[in-house]
Amino acid sequence: MRAARLHDRDDLRVEQIDEPTLKDGQVIVDIAWCGICGSDLHEYVLGPAPNNKVPHPLTGDTPPVAMGHEFCGRVRNPSSHSGLKDGDAVMVDPRVVCRKCGPCEKGATHACEKLGYHGYNAGGGYAERAAILETMLYKLPDNVDLENAAVIEPLAVVVHAIKETKLTGWKDRDILVIGGGPIGLALIIALKAFGAQKIIVSEPAAGRREQVKEFVMAAYNPVIDDVVGKCKEATGGKGMGIVFDCAGVPAGLEVGFAALGFEGQYMNVAVWEKPMVIPVMTFMFKHINIRSAIIFSDEDFKETMQMLADGKLVGYEKLITGRIRLEDIVEKGFNELINNKDEHIKILVSTRI
Amino acid sequence: MRAARLHDRDDLRVEQIDEPTLKDGQVIVDIAWCGICGSDLHEYVLGPAPNNKVPHPLTGDTPPVAMGHEFCGRVRNPSSHSGLKDGDAVMVDPRVVCRKCGPCEKGATHACEKLGYHGYNAGGGYAERAAILETMLYKLPDNVDLENAAVIEPLAVVVHAIKETKLTGWKDRDILVIGGGPIGLALIIALKAFGAQKIIVSEPAAGRREQVKEFVMAAYNPVIDDVVGKCKEATGGKGMGIVFDCAGVPAGLEVGFAALGFEGQYMNVAVWEKPMVIPVMTFMFKHINIRSAIIFSDEDFKETMQMLADGKLVGYEKLITGRIRLEDIVEKGFNELINNKDEHIKILVSTRI
Repeated sequence: MRAARLHDRDDLRVEQIDEPTLKDGQVIVDIAWCGICGSDLHEYVLGPAPNNKVPHPLTGDTPPVAMGHEFCGRVRNPSSHSGLKDGDAVMVDPRVVCRKCGPCEKGATHACEKLGYHGYNAGGGYAERAAILETMLYKLPDNVDLENAAVIEPLAVVVHAIKETKLTGWKDRDILVIGGGPIGLALIIALKAFGAQKIIVSEPAAGRREQVKEFVMAAYNPVIDDVVGKCKEATGGKGMGIVFDCAGVPAGLEVGFAALGFEGQYMNVAVWEKPMVIPVMTFMFKHINIRSAIIFSDEDFKETMQMLADGKLVGYEKLITGRIRLEDIVEKGFNELINNKDEHIKILVSTRI
Repeated sequence: MRAARLHDRDDLRVEQIDEPTLKDGQVIVDIAWCGICGSDLHEYVLGPAPNNKVPHPLTGDTPPVAMGHEFCGRVRNPSSHSGLKDGDAVMVDPRVVCRKCGPCEKGATHACEKLGYHGYNAGGGYAERAAILETMLYKLPDNVDLENAAVIEPLAVVVHAIKETKLTGWKDRDILVIGGGPIGLALIIALKAFGAQKIIVSEPAAGRREQVKEFVMAAYNPVIDDVVGKCKEATGGKGMGIVFDCAGVPAGLEVGFAALGFEGQYMNVAVWEKPMVIPVMTFMFKHINIRSAIIFSDEDFKETMQMLADGKLVGYEKLITGRIRLEDIVEKGFNELINNKDEHIKILVSTRI
């Protein structure tokens, strides 16, 4: 079958590879769409992470495998007890987890000690087909189109991040989102679904501010606007109650800490390339609580599916700003997102167009 | 009267100054003992902080003032409604707070927007007398000797820090304390009072390890011992549940994050001179919650007094490792703590010996 595999830094190849073979509990999914994730771009620019170069302890698969982990498709020949029928439209939970370690036993499979991913440690979504554990497939609700389903994966990431704030009464807190890219916008859509009222965004790219502005109270450009002053103004001088960092850059963190009020929470949802340096006196005197969220659990994924079925994630299809053929993945996908990222949120890839 | 005032970096002078004058609600305290705090050493070595060089918005007092904020003494001519009698032994809550700002209104006077201190922004404890708001005086319980009372202030700091973990069931968590100095040992004594079971300490100085070892399960030297390995061993591989950072140095933070288990809490109780750099991948994958605590509230101070009265803070008098005359404060106090800090926990100063 055709697939795109990352052989090394800057070396993503569209090529002919073997068909996936089924392991215990797996079924074939005919892949419809797969989203390009920031993590994929990281691996492409910096080279595969050490864990993604060696055979995975759970899958045994040796990289390179078909890349891509935000994918949906149609299931083939599911088992009779699966609740699925042949050809059903499904979303894939792409995680590979052991279900035996300490975190897994607590239900925190997102922190599995052997965590792997279809797309890094087993065949992923930039391909015609993948072999997936039947238990990791979710039938799409009737109101969710297979055309748009691939963005369920990043939506589950942000639903998880919101739950990880572990704050009662967080909906009444004034919220600053640092970064209006794919994770920032997905987060805002989920925040609205949960009932958050006052959301301000700090995002330097005009195109992205344009995309988020219909969802939020205000979107400011931190290069020009006094974001901290605007936040103080919007909160009667108190400062924000939560900052979600969806950018992962020092300048954003600085704005975030300065904009937070007393006992505010700084929630990091970003992967950092530079060191994360805490402004320690602000941290101490404001009694800021610093947390971080990554990936999602089974529960988060189920909750996200339910929110979609209930029509709560209003506007989620706006996360998709481009659709391309697998053959164009390098030029019109990866390179486009790297060179023209401000014009895009999420680009989807397919072998079927 | 005689007092020690910090005129500039490295310039602490014992000199004759005016007697304190009473403002509204204040009474005179004849000072018995005042402890030398790490914050005083910071100011001495680095020079007074900007806020401690200008008249304070609440006190109006202009530095230099008599330094020292961990002090006790005997109250003179208290008002009839104070519950105090002339000559009563009292501990001083040295904070100057507005009781009007957002944090103060929440009871979080430790985060008062105009927070000041006797010893920096009004006359403090390295002196014969001080004028203190009567409401900031606490009568010593019968079982607390005026000789030992000055350490109540740092004990209130650590009681606050423990409460600020905001964790239910924290007593059952395995605890690593980074740094066995004055704050580290005070914290350990308070942790024991609250019922903590398993406490491990990481402290490079042999003298300090010797001082803390009777209170804890084990005290390791991070320069020689594999502290992270020892913590894993002690917890069946799980890692610690809470790290209290009482050192504020990058090497300690590194050990702390590595020693924490899944969903562990990192509680900073230290003032940092270097940047606080978070090991971001460990932070994210372990879902570490980062908090910080500083100073104490009225409630914390009252609770600490009650814990003392109830005999719960067993061994607190061991925090005191030296007693000196005011005239010797520079050589036998500040310089001794800077040059021979490993041999001391807390040195007390008096004008009355």
